[in-house]
Amino acid sequence: MGKIKFTSADHIYVQVAEGIEKMISDDTLRIGDKLPSVRVLSDEYGISMGTAFQAYYHLEGKGLIESRPKSGYYVRFNQRRFPDLPKTFSAEPITSEVSIKDMIAAVYKDLSATDVINFSVAVPALELVPAAKLNKSVLHALRNSKDNCLGYEHVQGNPDLRKQVAKLAFNWGGSITPEEVVVTTGCMEALVMCLRAVTKWGDTVVVEKPAYFGIYQAMESLGLKVVEIFTDPQTGPDLDMLEKILKKFPVKACLFVPNFSNPIGSCMPDENKRRLVEIIIKYNTPLIEDDIYGELYFGKNRPRTCKYYDKTGLVMHCSSVSKSLAPGYRVGWVLPGKFLPIVKQLKLMHTISSPTLTQAAMAHFLSIGRYEYHLKNLRRALHTQCLRYMQAIMQYFPADTKISRPQGGFVLWVELNKKIDAYKLCTEALKHHISVAPGQIFSASSDYSNYVRISYGKPWSEDVEYGVMILGKLARKFENLKI
Amino acid sequence: MGKIKFTSADHIYVQVAEGIEKMISDDTLRIGDKLPSVRVLSDEYGISMGTAFQAYYHLEGKGLIESRPKSGYYVRFNQRRFPDLPKTFSAEPITSEVSIKDMIAAVYKDLSATDVINFSVAVPALELVPAAKLNKSVLHALRNSKDNCLGYEHVQGNPDLRKQVAKLAFNWGGSITPEEVVVTTGCMEALVMCLRAVTKWGDTVVVEKPAYFGIYQAMESLGLKVVEIFTDPQTGPDLDMLEKILKKFPVKACLFVPNFSNPIGSCMPDENKRRLVEIIIKYNTPLIEDDIYGELYFGKNRPRTCKYYDKTGLVMHCSSVSKSLAPGYRVGWVLPGKFLPIVKQLKLMHTISSPTLTQAAMAHFLSIGRYEYHLKNLRRALHTQCLRYMQAIMQYFPADTKISRPQGGFVLWVELNKKIDAYKLCTEALKHHISVAPGQIFSASSDYSNYVRISYGKPWSEDVEYGVMILGKLARKFENLKI
Repeated sequence: MGKIKFTSADHIYVQVAEGIEKMISDDTLRIGDKLPSVRVLSDEYGISMGTAFQAYYHLEGKGLIESRPKSGYYVRFNQRRFPDLPKTFSAEPITSEVSIKDMIAAVYKDLSATDVINFSVAVPALELVPAAKLNKSVLHALRNSKDNCLGYEHVQGNPDLRKQVAKLAFNWGGSITPEEVVVTTGCMEALVMCLRAVTKWGDTVVVEKPAYFGIYQAMESLGLKVVEIFTDPQTGPDLDMLEKILKKFPVKACLFVPNFSNPIGSCMPDENKRRLVEIIIKYNTPLIEDDIYGELYFGKNRPRTCKYYDKTGLVMHCSSVSKSLAPGYRVGWVLPGKFLPIVKQLKLMHTISSPTLTQAAMAHFLSIGRYEYHLKNLRRALHTQCLRYMQAIMQYFPADTKISRPQGGFVLWVELNKKIDAYKLCTEALKHHISVAPGQIFSASSDYSNYVRISYGKPWSEDVEYGVMILGKLARKFENLKI
Repeated sequence: MGKIKFTSADHIYVQVAEGIEKMISDDTLRIGDKLPSVRVLSDEYGISMGTAFQAYYHLEGKGLIESRPKSGYYVRFNQRRFPDLPKTFSAEPITSEVSIKDMIAAVYKDLSATDVINFSVAVPALELVPAAKLNKSVLHALRNSKDNCLGYEHVQGNPDLRKQVAKLAFNWGGSITPEEVVVTTGCMEALVMCLRAVTKWGDTVVVEKPAYFGIYQAMESLGLKVVEIFTDPQTGPDLDMLEKILKKFPVKACLFVPNFSNPIGSCMPDENKRRLVEIIIKYNTPLIEDDIYGELYFGKNRPRTCKYYDKTGLVMHCSSVSKSLAPGYRVGWVLPGKFLPIVKQLKLMHTISSPTLTQAAMAHFLSIGRYEYHLKNLRRALHTQCLRYMQAIMQYFPADTKISRPQGGFVLWVELNKKIDAYKLCTEALKHHISVAPGQIFSASSDYSNYVRISYGKPWSEDVEYGVMILGKLARKFENLKI
């Protein structure tokens, strides 16, 4: 096997495992090949037996290799075997009689139900989150607050938390001061406030397609018109199309998820981000950047943001800890650029300030470095889960199923046979206590009727495998129905 | 002295004190009269010396009697000596060059500043709130949550909290189920959601005048037109005027504070509430009822709500614990009547759900009866503070000053000489580290330029007396300026 230069950045077992993973992906090692024994691996790399074992264990967790009793480790899977990517658009959507709103209400009836295998909510499973450590930060916050966190927090948010948010921006090359941050009650409030800051009733906003359904609902409730442009699984929103639209129509804002967009999982290449920012500056159109998944990358480095390329203050950058740590804390933030004064005013008008205690707890959790430490573990877990889920979908779903290839985030975008009505499939799945999001709800125009979004936030388990298996069975059943 | 029938509803010392208070108010006891000694009082009522002393101590706290060294207790004050009530409207407003928004920004620059004597924020002082008990409820919530409060709460809010909110409604005769409650991030979010539920950009809403400035700002940001009707210090909004307006204009909602309106302190008599509900039903106009001060009554009984008189579901009732317990928790709620489905949807769209931990803590605090217990103490403290502040204003302010006579809530509405520009007075006061709200910000039309709102949320102290004294001096100075 090839040699690896160990760096100090990562655990040695991870570096060994990555070396082997590379050999699998470039066909140096093929499916079915026997791997060296743990002892040989240890000798070859000059690492302990324990470290060698950990490396194999890690690869096994990802489903790339398997151990056969009394025989050793074998290559089991190759990412190149993945099926085709989903199409960005289903040309002949099957119209449904159920409104999108009703579909969403049906799927998300009870966010806190416990007797359901939940593939529909894109949040980390409890076992992936350091709950005890976070509890300690709550106690710390109560003990160290001059008023037990009873009083109103500063309109703009806890100063220590804003300092930590500014520090987080270093990860994508940002240079932000705490005074440029406004804390919000989750990322959703941040997005709504940004929309309100730059639009009014009847205005037009450009979004990508498919996109998180919450965005459409929020816009509808704000009386906004939505223009959708297609987003590519690899490169993100179609920028040529965007420029054509901005040239023609009086668009008041764009709202995109440049990093690991939901549901399609695309991460815009740096070059596209740079070009997007050039375009919005050219047409003086504010860009609302939803970066809620930005920290959940599977690669080596955190992807940059559009905010990074913007020197004009036209980009409003939104994020939160809801996808990475604690949705129930409702701690989010916005870097509103030149719209800071109006966003501050909207925050004061609509909620006065966000809750004091959860902000103070989160500020402490970040300041002691727990968040960065947790993110490192979470990224690794999500990457493993992502691969595991993909393999299971390939195993249990019909052969013509197509799956997205996210490089971060939480969700797989799965294209099924055109005959399948995803909403009906999801309704049927709910009867089996399995919750999954139908494709229809990811576009204002109710396209994607043969797509489902599967969240891999839950660690791989027998329950999860059972859930995927049942979904696969249902998909086969629906595919064989005569319509 | 007269006999009193003791009831079991209140402490005996309070009942004795109230008996004496009544004798003072009906002139049976006059200012300067000597009161019986503690021993005589004890004999006369058949109460212990300790209880007799407590009764005098209580009256002293209210500033109604005073103890003179080696001499005993004397009547010091009579509520009938109060000055005239403020007018509901200043006919010739002095126009100001500063916009209302800028005034608000200047007065409320930093809600958490500690080096300021704050008369401008209507919240209870920290020393009036059982912080340690509430902390225990936070710990209880963390310990008893299946996921350490990390996950999303139900869109409509914590079920236990909704049960407690439903129980609170009994106090005003309401019969509400937990399913009719939506928990919000403070009362402000509740009001904004109600407005959004029944209006759209360009619609017209009726509010009372003067009113909490936040309402005007929120409405402006929602693109709403505001029609103001005068509110009377005793009877609340002018219902004849309301009916005329509803007859003529397509009004989409009314928003009133029927109980202890801010800043004028009026509490609508039951008869007016009933008539108001009849009117809005007649014109099919939803009523948004802001009842945030409803529990803070000084009288014997909690005032009823408009919701009580409504059988149609047109009244949307909003409240929170921000004025009575913990503004920093941002726990509020709405009983949206027949608009429940749309309010739930708006909640999901705009913030997904409110923070889990603070809801769970508040649910526990209410369920163990601590809230009711705390409210009882708080009401007594606020009543005492109200009287104390009024007396001080009479002592230190110019003789032509007029003061409102609130029967609950947090604030005094003070009318100064017409020559005085309240905003200038408040700006000057801030230089002395005293914060007070100028009248101009309590109307969309910038009236009330010679009024100030003084919150008596802070217990009486030397600092507070100093603050009132300086305000009085500034008022005298401004009154004597030539303009």
